[in-house]
Amino acid sequence: MTIFPQITIIGMGLIGSSIARAARQNQVAERLIGCDSNPDHRETARELKLCDRIYADPAQAAHDADLVILATPVGTYGDLGGQIGPVLKPGAILTDVGSVKASVIRALAPHMRADCFLIPGHPVAGTEQSGPAAGFASLFKGRWCILTPAEGSSPEAVEKLEQFWRALGSMTECMTPDHHDMVLAITSHLPHLIAYNIVGTARHLEEVTKSEVIKFSAGGFRDFTRIAASDPTMWRDVFLNNKEAVLEMLGRFTEDLTALQRSIRYDEGDKLFDLFDRTRRIRKQIIDAGQDEDVPDFGRHLDEQ
Amino acid sequence: MTIFPQITIIGMGLIGSSIARAARQNQVAERLIGCDSNPDHRETARELKLCDRIYADPAQAAHDADLVILATPVGTYGDLGGQIGPVLKPGAILTDVGSVKASVIRALAPHMRADCFLIPGHPVAGTEQSGPAAGFASLFKGRWCILTPAEGSSPEAVEKLEQFWRALGSMTECMTPDHHDMVLAITSHLPHLIAYNIVGTARHLEEVTKSEVIKFSAGGFRDFTRIAASDPTMWRDVFLNNKEAVLEMLGRFTEDLTALQRSIRYDEGDKLFDLFDRTRRIRKQIIDAGQDEDVPDFGRHLDEQ
Repeated sequence: MTIFPQITIIGMGLIGSSIARAARQNQVAERLIGCDSNPDHRETARELKLCDRIYADPAQAAHDADLVILATPVGTYGDLGGQIGPVLKPGAILTDVGSVKASVIRALAPHMRADCFLIPGHPVAGTEQSGPAAGFASLFKGRWCILTPAEGSSPEAVEKLEQFWRALGSMTECMTPDHHDMVLAITSHLPHLIAYNIVGTARHLEEVTKSEVIKFSAGGFRDFTRIAASDPTMWRDVFLNNKEAVLEMLGRFTEDLTALQRSIRYDEGDKLFDLFDRTRRIRKQIIDAGQDEDVPDFGRHLDEQ
Repeated sequence: MTIFPQITIIGMGLIGSSIARAARQNQVAERLIGCDSNPDHRETARELKLCDRIYADPAQAAHDADLVILATPVGTYGDLGGQIGPVLKPGAILTDVGSVKASVIRALAPHMRADCFLIPGHPVAGTEQSGPAAGFASLFKGRWCILTPAEGSSPEAVEKLEQFWRALGSMTECMTPDHHDMVLAITSHLPHLIAYNIVGTARHLEEVTKSEVIKFSAGGFRDFTRIAASDPTMWRDVFLNNKEAVLEMLGRFTEDLTALQRSIRYDEGDKLFDLFDRTRRIRKQIIDAGQDEDVPDFGRHLDEQ
C-alpha cells in the first residue's frame, strides 16, 4: 500500500539502506530516491538496486519528495537542512533517524518553511555494522520507532509517518524530544559509552597482553566489543549532541559503581548478591516484551546443540 | 579414548552438567559420578542421565575418583576441600572450574595430601543460564581452558588434565594464578560488574520508567542484561575472591571513563572519534581468533534475512 508517492533517503548507510530495502519490499512508495556524498556508497547502492535513482546532491534528491528521511550522522543536519529546506515541496514531511532529538530540532527547525512538516524520528534498531551493504529489510521489524513532533504539528502528517513505520514492521510511540534524549541516554548512549571505554581500558594494560584479551574474551568482554565496533562518526555526534542527558546518566552510573566498588572492598557479600539477584529479572521482562530472543548466550551455540 | 577410569563432578550446574555431557559424549571416563547438595538438581541430573551415579555427599562421590572437578561457587571450596581432601585416592587429581585462581589455591591447598595433585583450572566458557538443564556438550568447544598448576606440580598430571580438556574440544594454556586473576579481571569480571551496575542504575531512575527501559532496550542496553542475568551466588563469590585485581582494573576503567566524560563536556570530538575508531578493530581480531561469530548483532536477524 503506497503511503508516499516519493520518498527520498539522505544517507545510504546501514539505516538508510535498510529503510530503502524495507520500503521497496512493502511497496510504501511509488518512487524511491537515494542520496549519499560518498561515491563508493552510491556505487554500492546502484549495484544493489536499492533506489530508483541515487544522487550526490541533497537538494536535487529532495526537491520532489513527499517524505525526506535524513539518515546521516546528526552532526551533518544543520548543513543538510540549509540545502534541503528551501527546495522542499509544499506539504512535504522532513524526518530523520538520529539517536538524539532535541539538538536535531535545533539544527533543522530554522530551515523549515511554514508549508512543510518537520517530524523528527528515531527507529531504535541497528547492528554494529555500517554502509549500504550492511542493511536488510527486516531491521525494523518488531522494534520501536519514536517520533518527537513539535507541539502544534499536523496530526495528519504525524499519522502518515507512523503509518510508514508500521508498514516497515515497527511499533511507534510519540514523546517530547527531551524525554527521548533522557530515555535513550540510559538505554543506548551510556551502554555504548561504557562499552567503548572498557575496550579502551583493555588496550592500554601493561600486565595483560592484547593476545590474552582476545583469547579469553569469551568470559564476557567480547559482548562489549560488538557494541564498541559501531560507527565512530555517528557515535561522536551522538555524545556531542546529547551532552546533558549523557552526563546526568553517567553521573548516576559512576555513583552506583563507586558504591559497588566499596561493597567489594569491604566484603559486603549480601549487598552484591542482592544487586546481582535483582538485575537478572529485567532480562526476562525484555524477552517477554519481544525485545530480545529467548536463547542462551545470544544463540551462539545454537547450531552445535 | 578413556583418560580417567572415574571422574567425579561436584556441582551439577551449567558448567558441571556440561562437563558431564561432554565427558560422556567423548568417552573420556569409564565411570562418571556426580554430586550436588540441591535435591532438585540431583533429580534433574538423574532424569537427564548425566552421570552413572549422583550423590549428595562430596566425600562419598569423590573417594574412588581419579579426577575430581569442583564446579560449585568458589566460596564453597574451603568446606569442600575439608571433606574431599582426606578421602582422595592416592594419585588422584583435584581440579576446579572457578573464575578466580589465587584464592582457590589458598582455600584448597591446606587440605591436600602429598600423594594427590591439586591443579586448578578455568574453562573460559559459559552462558547466562544456570542449573543442570542449562548445560550442553559443546560448551567448551573452541574455548580456552586455563590451568594454574603450582610450581613443582607433576608434569604428567598436568598433561593428563590438559588431555582431558582437549578431549572436550578446548585449547589449554598454563599460567600463574596471579596472572590468571589479572587477565580475567579485565576480560570477564569487570565486564560483568559494569553490566550488573548499569542494569542497577536503570532500575532506579525516576525520569525513565521501567517499561521504557524495556521497550527501547534494543538500543544497546539489552546486551548488558544478558550478562547481568548470570548466577548471583557465583558472581558474588568471584568479586569477593578477586578483590585486588578487580579493584585495580576498576580503578583504570573509572579513570578512563572520567577522561571520556571530560571530552564530552568540553566538546572534544576528535578525542571521542579517535577512541571509537580504535576500539572497533579489536572486534575483528576476536572474530579472526574464532572467539566470536562473524554475524552482525549476534545473529539476531539471521532467520529473517
